[in-house]
Amino acid sequence: MSVTLADIEAARRVIAGQVLCTPMLPAPKLSALVEAEVHVKYENLQVTNSFKERGALTKLASLTADERRRGVIAMSAGNHAQAVAYHARRLDIPATIVMPVTTPFVKVAATEAHGAEVVLDGETVADAQVRAEAIATGGDLTWVHPYDDPYVISGQGTIALEMLETVPDLDVLVVPIGGGGLIAGNAIAARGVRPGIEIVGAESALYPSMWNAVTGGDRRCGGATLAEGIAVKNVGRLTLPVVRDCVAEIVLVDEAQLERAVNAYLTQQKVMAEGAGAAGLAALFAVPERFRGRKVGLILCGGNIDPRILASIMVRELERDSRIVSFRLTIPDRPGVLGVIATRLGQLGANILEVDHKRLFLDVPAKGAKLDVTIETRDRAHADEIFAALAADGYLPTRIEAGAAME
Amino acid sequence: MSVTLADIEAARRVIAGQVLCTPMLPAPKLSALVEAEVHVKYENLQVTNSFKERGALTKLASLTADERRRGVIAMSAGNHAQAVAYHARRLDIPATIVMPVTTPFVKVAATEAHGAEVVLDGETVADAQVRAEAIATGGDLTWVHPYDDPYVISGQGTIALEMLETVPDLDVLVVPIGGGGLIAGNAIAARGVRPGIEIVGAESALYPSMWNAVTGGDRRCGGATLAEGIAVKNVGRLTLPVVRDCVAEIVLVDEAQLERAVNAYLTQQKVMAEGAGAAGLAALFAVPERFRGRKVGLILCGGNIDPRILASIMVRELERDSRIVSFRLTIPDRPGVLGVIATRLGQLGANILEVDHKRLFLDVPAKGAKLDVTIETRDRAHADEIFAALAADGYLPTRIEAGAAME
Repeated sequence: MSVTLADIEAARRVIAGQVLCTPMLPAPKLSALVEAEVHVKYENLQVTNSFKERGALTKLASLTADERRRGVIAMSAGNHAQAVAYHARRLDIPATIVMPVTTPFVKVAATEAHGAEVVLDGETVADAQVRAEAIATGGDLTWVHPYDDPYVISGQGTIALEMLETVPDLDVLVVPIGGGGLIAGNAIAARGVRPGIEIVGAESALYPSMWNAVTGGDRRCGGATLAEGIAVKNVGRLTLPVVRDCVAEIVLVDEAQLERAVNAYLTQQKVMAEGAGAAGLAALFAVPERFRGRKVGLILCGGNIDPRILASIMVRELERDSRIVSFRLTIPDRPGVLGVIATRLGQLGANILEVDHKRLFLDVPAKGAKLDVTIETRDRAHADEIFAALAADGYLPTRIEAGAAME
Repeated sequence: MSVTLADIEAARRVIAGQVLCTPMLPAPKLSALVEAEVHVKYENLQVTNSFKERGALTKLASLTADERRRGVIAMSAGNHAQAVAYHARRLDIPATIVMPVTTPFVKVAATEAHGAEVVLDGETVADAQVRAEAIATGGDLTWVHPYDDPYVISGQGTIALEMLETVPDLDVLVVPIGGGGLIAGNAIAARGVRPGIEIVGAESALYPSMWNAVTGGDRRCGGATLAEGIAVKNVGRLTLPVVRDCVAEIVLVDEAQLERAVNAYLTQQKVMAEGAGAAGLAALFAVPERFRGRKVGLILCGGNIDPRILASIMVRELERDSRIVSFRLTIPDRPGVLGVIATRLGQLGANILEVDHKRLFLDVPAKGAKLDVTIETRDRAHADEIFAALAADGYLPTRIEAGAAME
């Protein structure tokens, strides 16, 4: 049952014209950040905004007429759900998608919009899985597994074929790992076409299940990760041996690195990456020396990130750069003081975003007050300069975390 | 001095391999929104994230050895500045960029990072222009005009050649208009290659300078537009006759349409567009019936939008969809009430983002209080359901604008 380069080449013929051959472009600004030559494959530009369409369509296209008539079932709260729903409708195959009841409404709606029947059941993914298995057996439906299926693995592997056609001399391919379908398919394809290429995996440090399986480690899996698309506790039966054979190293990326990578795609490349989609770039941030001077291919595998989370990441990055900064000032509580301070901040070139005037603190004299201001600055040096000026004016500034306001 | 298809074809040879041949991709979700077949050219993926590199490089490459040695000058606070700086350094040509003193620091830093000498002078663009002219004369520098130059126009026109090579049967091309360089070049190129194609312009309704020039109108130019990249008061001497000859119609787009277009690129296509970059899509939103059922090419011409503005647009869109909503409740002012309400909101499936408890309002009884809550909901129906439940509980909810908190 092991997948071969020939299987992946066949999958490529199957999906041609039905799944986008996405752009593979040099990314000079990201290259400068990590001192490597970075090329990015933009799978977020697929219709459902992730690579999952490749595997889902390859699987659906493999079904017999009878299997198509009976329909398919998948269990997913994420990109796989939309990919299966979208291509099942295109091929006129009834699709049932089981999702945990906790699935955000947007994802349910997006999947229903692609014409699938969504069944919400189970508090957890494991519960939903049990329910899905019951429905599959009852209705004699075909499973479309998100990663542990040779057709799915073959479909995902088509990405590396396209990447190496555009940039044939890549030194290394960095691929996010969840259940392992993406990296297994692409490792087989890339090493089939270019035997010397190195394959590196990128896994969320909070869900190091493949790392555990390959290294014999026993790190804990759990917690809220920005890369929920690769937060998988069980690796694939088919994918594990491929990773063991073909993957040189698995880099575990932490939340700060994932967040920085999402932000870098946004600010440097002007594209949206979900946490899992940015995991490859996060691995470059985690161990830049490993990739320095080399020609690196990244798969930006998905762009489905919640707008509120993205907005929050953008603002937090501005805070980290001190381009948004909050101070607490101690001021005499008399009319006109706020005007004086606001004018002073204007002279200093600070743009006031938010003011919170508090008189109820117990640690100020009865006739004093605290004023929290959140300002926008040009950069860290400018923020320091403003701080020093306010201190010289006698306002006893202290730097504080920006309020919930900006989160 | 008029630009021909041959000039644009020559420009294409000049810039080949030095400027990205950006992706031109179908956008099925945008197509569904406007009931047309939309294809997007992603110029935001250029290194400096806008199409301006094409014209700037075409101009720089046309200089004599002597002109190159003396250097070039440009006046721009935006994408043109970075484009000139980036390619001048690549070609080893000294570049001076004059910017108004009000230019955001990020843009100054980005331009300096590309190796240009930045001169900050003048409160307004007009003042900066005067200063730039003095420097140019003094140093015998060559002007790189942002639009009114045949080389620049030829360079910008290379976009349409690439678009029509990918999708030869486009019915209509919708192009943002500032000074007119982008639309003039692309109108000449597109109609040269495909005489029957229709060219439609998209101009900010706050800066209808080309619309005025072509229609003889006298609408006022001014105000803060999201599309600052096309907020131009004076159209080009070279570009105007081309627009008059080749452009079927100029659609004026308002701020709400621009904002919706920026958001649609972000949420549907997972890419960042600046306001000017999204103006073509905004025109489709403004007059969808004009484009219905047709094959439309859009140029997403730039992606340089301030992260804070983008974050704000994203959150405002969630508010418009009632996925973020704020209520003011009247509650008895006694211990434990906040807990009761928070628990109730949890039962209703609302995710609390922010709470503001006010006791100082004069319009509530002395023993009452007002509570402002901002919550996240699944959708509009869910928000209505929560409102009805709070009313039934006797909290007299009123819908309010979400606080500065979320802006």
